Amino acid sequence: MLITGIKALTFDVFGTVVDWRSSVIHEAHVTELRVDAAKFADDWRAGYQPAMARVRSGDLGWTSIDVLHRRILDELIEKYKLTGLTEAQKVHLNRVWHRLDPWPDAARGLSLLRRKFICATLSNGNVSLLIDLARHGGLTWDCVLSAELYRAYKPEAKVYLGAAATLGVKPEETMMVAAHKGDLLGARKAGLKTAFVERALEKGPGGGADIGREDWMDVYAKDFVDLARQLGAAA
Amino acid sequence: MLITGIKALTFDVFGTVVDWRSSVIHEAHVTELRVDAAKFADDWRAGYQPAMARVRSGDLGWTSIDVLHRRILDELIEKYKLTGLTEAQKVHLNRVWHRLDPWPDAARGLSLLRRKFICATLSNGNVSLLIDLARHGGLTWDCVLSAELYRAYKPEAKVYLGAAATLGVKPEETMMVAAHKGDLLGARKAGLKTAFVERALEKGPGGGADIGREDWMDVYAKDFVDLARQLGAAA
Repeated sequence: MLITGIKALTFDVFGTVVDWRSSVIHEAHVTELRVDAAKFADDWRAGYQPAMARVRSGDLGWTSIDVLHRRILDELIEKYKLTGLTEAQKVHLNRVWHRLDPWPDAARGLSLLRRKFICATLSNGNVSLLIDLARHGGLTWDCVLSAELYRAYKPEAKVYLGAAATLGVKPEETMMVAAHKGDLLGARKAGLKTAFVERALEKGPGGGADIGREDWMDVYAKDFVDLARQLGAAA
Repeated sequence: MLITGIKALTFDVFGTVVDWRSSVIHEAHVTELRVDAAKFADDWRAGYQPAMARVRSGDLGWTSIDVLHRRILDELIEKYKLTGLTEAQKVHLNRVWHRLDPWPDAARGLSLLRRKFICATLSNGNVSLLIDLARHGGLTWDCVLSAELYRAYKPEAKVYLGAAATLGVKPEETMMVAAHKGDLLGARKAGLKTAFVERALEKGPGGGADIGREDWMDVYAKDFVDLARQLGAAA
């Protein structure tokens, strides 16, 4: 059944558009960090939700993802005893999150979806990070929206409602696209439509990704090109 | 002399990127409005600064340009006695500001400038309007920024400073591009660099546009391709 009445799509980015894990692992290799690269990537990402939770709870004032990533990195530098890194190297390493590679279908699927819909990011990552990811990955967005603009992190309702308002569309005319059920449930609670894109390899070949269709999902897609096809945006 | 240290360009849109006057005149013709099309366009635009001034002064709470354009239109409908328009026709007519054509050099110049710089809109127009203009005109921005995001209208400093912060760059690493000296003076006061692009025909063949080089301008360009050349972004 074709979903109708959708005018805008908002996209989660880390894990949904870009493959953060492979990219961080690759960075650890090329910069010759003396770490188990996969474990290092997983540890870095594991610090992400607890860091945002401190902002959500009010324990920490508004803090951008760039700054949160750096705090987590500083803890990992201690943990992994990476004592030889200069400040410039730490700054460069932290910006690996600005250089993540997209999943292979992302740019192509996005260009198809843009034929029919306004397509915007809606990530917890800060705007400057999202701009860099778009330039790095050859992704063209109609608009780069971020939790930063609403001073709240997903899955808080004000992020989803703020994005719809900025795009000049009603919540029910907006579809959140994500590989994470928690994000989609937040969007759904705010009145948006939901499209789940399964990224089975997000957490690596050992599994652990958020997978599986649920009854409440408006669309379940295997990648962005499949999503375009299901939304009537592909030939 | 080549200006160095610039990382991001922020662009005024109405008059600088798009030719609002010809576009509104064209719309008045094709919709067969019984008006002097040029005078109608000029009257509509003339209502713009006073409307924003009411928001700046606090006399009116935050109000988007879409809504301000409609209020001015309603006054013009009275003035020109356009009694035959349905509500749907009024809504469509008001959205002419979402369908303005770019100046002939805009898309080409922007694509050159994006090779070297982050390029974002920074318009008093609301985000959804700017998205529509970009799609209509085939313009690709790294980011769509608007006064709307900072709840203040240019030339208030918080708009320019907010944009630089969102882009993750310092004010002095940001260059405001506009065809209006008042906008550039506001940017300059906030610490940004300035590029004036002369749009001699903005107000029509009879003149009235903001023209002429001033000592305080960092760059004076005749169009976007010239700007790209002067900033070292064109071959």
